[in-house]
Amino acid sequence: MVWKGVSDAVIRRLPLYLRVLEEVKGKESSISSHELGEEAGVRPALVRKDLAWFGEFGKQGVGYDVEFLQDALRKILHLEEPIHMALVGVGSLGHALARYNRRRFLEDPVFTIEPVALFDVNPKLVGGTLDGIPIYSLEEIKRVVPEEAIQLAIITVPADAAQKVCDALVEAGVKAILNFAPVQLEAPKDVHVANTDLSLELQRLAYYIGV
Amino acid sequence: MVWKGVSDAVIRRLPLYLRVLEEVKGKESSISSHELGEEAGVRPALVRKDLAWFGEFGKQGVGYDVEFLQDALRKILHLEEPIHMALVGVGSLGHALARYNRRRFLEDPVFTIEPVALFDVNPKLVGGTLDGIPIYSLEEIKRVVPEEAIQLAIITVPADAAQKVCDALVEAGVKAILNFAPVQLEAPKDVHVANTDLSLELQRLAYYIGV
Repeated sequence: MVWKGVSDAVIRRLPLYLRVLEEVKGKESSISSHELGEEAGVRPALVRKDLAWFGEFGKQGVGYDVEFLQDALRKILHLEEPIHMALVGVGSLGHALARYNRRRFLEDPVFTIEPVALFDVNPKLVGGTLDGIPIYSLEEIKRVVPEEAIQLAIITVPADAAQKVCDALVEAGVKAILNFAPVQLEAPKDVHVANTDLSLELQRLAYYIGV
Repeated sequence: MVWKGVSDAVIRRLPLYLRVLEEVKGKESSISSHELGEEAGVRPALVRKDLAWFGEFGKQGVGYDVEFLQDALRKILHLEEPIHMALVGVGSLGHALARYNRRRFLEDPVFTIEPVALFDVNPKLVGGTLDGIPIYSLEEIKRVVPEEAIQLAIITVPADAAQKVCDALVEAGVKAILNFAPVQLEAPKDVHVANTDLSLELQRLAYYIGV
């Protein structure tokens, strides 16, 4: 289910709240918007406004039931069931991200996103594995994505290869993409593409150096 | 110089504009807000509004002078002179990011952010180099940051070590930090901390799967 009218800015904060709830779970049974906001780095009024989009979770004077809100947020974010993820481009960055996410999945019981397939053009890598995750050729995206029920993908290929990879992933049924290639990708409206461009991020930070 | 009243959302788009200008430079001498917006993925009206914060760059019916605007944006973002960067935490992700940024700096003449120092706790790494970048111990942050005139830093240490690293960097004079550790860092107001939490990003994207 995708909720109508909810902006991406709201969605961005939900995993932050979820992380706070996971930390206090077992220690506290309820949490105030003030405490939740403090830990998440969000104003309490905004916490209440964000959560109100999805229902009436809070009780005046009591706050939010930690376990109930956690379950609700996991449901809203589709994190109740494991999500299968692919990563395309096993270069230096792709390699690190695959290992990072694999370890995260294995060690953190609440992190349910599992990298199940890697794709690369390098014939020396194809057919092998990385931390137990099989590496396929790009041509196999079409077959492996539906077979493994992959819904989420990370793109870490060079800029000039990224759009073609994006097209192949979308055609195979991937619904959300995290793109590390320094290029704006085009995708159909029902596919969500998020860009994480480290160079742009660093260039932006340079502004704050204020030399 | 830091411009008054300019929001971070505006600053975030400037590197996007800069990238478009770098691509058209030499091919076109002027560019319209429409074309600039199209390539950057930003509405033309917003392009004009963003740039108006910093001066009158556009000419009615002609658009923006490509070279002039490029120089102005590089100046606003403090990218005229090389910026020295450190990276703390040479694990799997830190290793990949150091190499990625090093290559970017060497290969892309307009990318002026240079990784000049790495820091880690691992005695097997300390004293060595990675792609020619020296690796120091965390204790050496205090000495090396001012010596190398480092202003920007990437943190890729585990969550429980990140705040201590952040404090050491700030004390040594770093003005902007890109944090990959899954934790909210506290820093003085004049230091800008940007968080890039891949787990949060993936959990947010899971929302859009819409199962």
